[in-house]
Amino acid sequence: MLEAVLKTIDDGLPGSLDRLFGLLRIESISTDPAFAPRVRAAADWLAKELVGLGLEASVRPTRGHPMVVAHDRNADHGPHVLFYAHYDVQPVDPLGEWASPPFEPRLVDAGGRERIVARGASDDKGQLMTFVEACRAWIKVAGKLPVRVSMILEGEEESGSASLMPFLAANREELRADVALVCDTAMWNPSRPAVTIMLRGLVGEEFTVIAADRDLHSGLFGGAARNPNHVVAAIIAGLHDAEGRVTLPGFYDGVGETPDGIRAIWDSLGFDAAGFLGGVGLEVPAGEAGRSVLEQIWSRPTAEVNGMIGGYTGDGFKTVIPSRASAKVSFRLVGDQDPARIRDAFRAYVRERVPVDCRVEFKAHGASPGLRLPYDGVYLERARNALRDEWGVEPALVGSGGSIPVVGVLKQALGMDSLMIGFALDDDRIHSPNEKYDVASFRGGIRSWARVLAALAE
Amino acid sequence: MLEAVLKTIDDGLPGSLDRLFGLLRIESISTDPAFAPRVRAAADWLAKELVGLGLEASVRPTRGHPMVVAHDRNADHGPHVLFYAHYDVQPVDPLGEWASPPFEPRLVDAGGRERIVARGASDDKGQLMTFVEACRAWIKVAGKLPVRVSMILEGEEESGSASLMPFLAANREELRADVALVCDTAMWNPSRPAVTIMLRGLVGEEFTVIAADRDLHSGLFGGAARNPNHVVAAIIAGLHDAEGRVTLPGFYDGVGETPDGIRAIWDSLGFDAAGFLGGVGLEVPAGEAGRSVLEQIWSRPTAEVNGMIGGYTGDGFKTVIPSRASAKVSFRLVGDQDPARIRDAFRAYVRERVPVDCRVEFKAHGASPGLRLPYDGVYLERARNALRDEWGVEPALVGSGGSIPVVGVLKQALGMDSLMIGFALDDDRIHSPNEKYDVASFRGGIRSWARVLAALAE
Repeated sequence: MLEAVLKTIDDGLPGSLDRLFGLLRIESISTDPAFAPRVRAAADWLAKELVGLGLEASVRPTRGHPMVVAHDRNADHGPHVLFYAHYDVQPVDPLGEWASPPFEPRLVDAGGRERIVARGASDDKGQLMTFVEACRAWIKVAGKLPVRVSMILEGEEESGSASLMPFLAANREELRADVALVCDTAMWNPSRPAVTIMLRGLVGEEFTVIAADRDLHSGLFGGAARNPNHVVAAIIAGLHDAEGRVTLPGFYDGVGETPDGIRAIWDSLGFDAAGFLGGVGLEVPAGEAGRSVLEQIWSRPTAEVNGMIGGYTGDGFKTVIPSRASAKVSFRLVGDQDPARIRDAFRAYVRERVPVDCRVEFKAHGASPGLRLPYDGVYLERARNALRDEWGVEPALVGSGGSIPVVGVLKQALGMDSLMIGFALDDDRIHSPNEKYDVASFRGGIRSWARVLAALAE
Repeated sequence: MLEAVLKTIDDGLPGSLDRLFGLLRIESISTDPAFAPRVRAAADWLAKELVGLGLEASVRPTRGHPMVVAHDRNADHGPHVLFYAHYDVQPVDPLGEWASPPFEPRLVDAGGRERIVARGASDDKGQLMTFVEACRAWIKVAGKLPVRVSMILEGEEESGSASLMPFLAANREELRADVALVCDTAMWNPSRPAVTIMLRGLVGEEFTVIAADRDLHSGLFGGAARNPNHVVAAIIAGLHDAEGRVTLPGFYDGVGETPDGIRAIWDSLGFDAAGFLGGVGLEVPAGEAGRSVLEQIWSRPTAEVNGMIGGYTGDGFKTVIPSRASAKVSFRLVGDQDPARIRDAFRAYVRERVPVDCRVEFKAHGASPGLRLPYDGVYLERARNALRDEWGVEPALVGSGGSIPVVGVLKQALGMDSLMIGFALDDDRIHSPNEKYDVASFRGGIRSWARVLAALAE
């Protein structure tokens, strides 16, 4: 049966591309209110496609752009999966740098690799359609999908996802499934697929140390008056020890070690740490001693000062001892680190270091825990098998130091874990002019989803 | 003879005030080109007054505002003194906060203390005229001054003194004297005069640490990429040890200890360290352990970070690892500390702490050594005796953490030490609306200079 589905996919690829091009022609830029009707048009287009496949599908209003929700309840066994992707796109500025109009998709041959060039080709319409086309092939061949499938297709991902959490919370019973499939990530490289199994969380903190009640002259007061620049610098300098570890008491509680199986996969990836750092002009990994660069950016927590300021920072020189100095610090969290406890530990650490006659003010800038798919979960295992079968290579199980908000929102609102599987490539120029998606990514993505659906049904 | 001079001063006080008022009416704001003719008018007024006293006086052009130079060569013994003050004034903004027009001087009774209110009343026309009126009384009574006197009266002090060094250098032979008398400082309090015997020098340095060749996403790179905020903070934090001492190797070379005699005077001043810090909202002296606050601000060198900046410092939060971070650092120098060696030591210290794959750039912001009058010099001793006779109390020998550029310029251009004696008070509101000068300051200043001139002749 699967082989027939895969053959149908290959035979039907021109039709799949036609349909993708149809979606790409709709200028669904979500940040610009002028394009709201086009965002709505993209939602309508999708709902119509999905209804045409036999799914129960509708465009559902929110306070912002609508959601497209679809269900296929025909499968009689296997898990219930919830597929997520987004149909809105980034703005196209600077328009002058596009080689062809961003909403007139076309195929371009780039040294033997055929590419779909358009805004949203990769992020995320092309990815979204890999799943839709996989469903189409299954339904055509088998008359139904191998597992029960729901979909939620978002129209606000590029503009903050403000409606996502309220919508999920309001439709909890309808949307809750056994596992989510999130298609908005990249392959490891053009020949090796990837499943993103961990995302770091984030605690954002800003603190301001206030010393004197006015700026002071550093000649008249220097040597006797407390300088908040020095206080803030000492607090920052004390955040890491000589081994690059974060010094906050209890900071590593709940971090856990990366399992040997995952480490073995990472070791096999052939990650070019020197190239990764060299690409931005650096040479020496600056983080925790004894950890590989991949661990440093994927599975280890961090403390980074994203901004600091105090005193006179314009041209020239001003001999001031400022009244106040401040810094913005972000902690990336992994495993079971508790954002609230990290925040508390940081504030206690700062308070201990603020001299008695200084004040400190804190401002919170968000908190989210790290997310990690169970390394030995059955859905992950099945998806790995399916991807291995398709690509002929062990899929990379990767982390991401950044965040994919929907994964946390699904976990929080519906208690669901996500399998993040995507077929973008690092050179897809998402958010930039001349965004592209390889036809090989599109075809491989459709075939991969067809296999994943089959594997999940086992 | 001196008693007759002092009586003449007291009897002539109304006339002295009239003349001061005449000078105060001239709007000699040196920073605003629109007032250049009025600056010139003030110079002309002064030259005419001094010629009227029998001095050889003239208005001397510079590339900026003119100097007034005067000489009295009638004394047949004693040292040759060069008196310095400035006749230009600060702008008057915000004009709306003045209780009376700034260039219409008037006498105001403030709880028994009669005050002269006008722009320049204290800084520095009132102070300048104390010396001129003392000379007038001496010439009236004795027919000549007790010592040989030259004067240089500057019209650019409030706008950067750009012409001072070139003018002194070009007129070295004419202006060189045995000691300079600089009248632009304050009394210790309304009943205790002060001689400023030390000024701290200044080395200004700015450094920028550059890590990656672009700003990085702290999620994608955090934990592996060098964060220049951390590097700069560690450099700042390492500048002082736990005792508040500056850690640069060789930093304290040439500092020297304050002589016991000077310390004894400082101990006797009844300086209210708690009030000094409390007045700006602080409690705890933050500088070198084991040093009094007066030592910390007058006789000890410092390192202060006047500004630091790196990364995102606007509202909200941005998860960036910046490409660069920087700080501006000033060192206040005392004794024989060598500005060039301090700068070199700082740059070496920074370079040692910049990781191999980061760059550092430096920018110099000026360098001047500390200045110190010989504690046991004969001119200082005579001036102290004169001031003690006038005020009935041991004059405070004070330091100043700030700078009075002319003192360094006189030292550098003419090799002369300065006696800084002035009669301003901390509450004179110099540079601010409603500037004032106590009539008691004016009278006491005139009488003090009369005595100092006599004492120097001994």
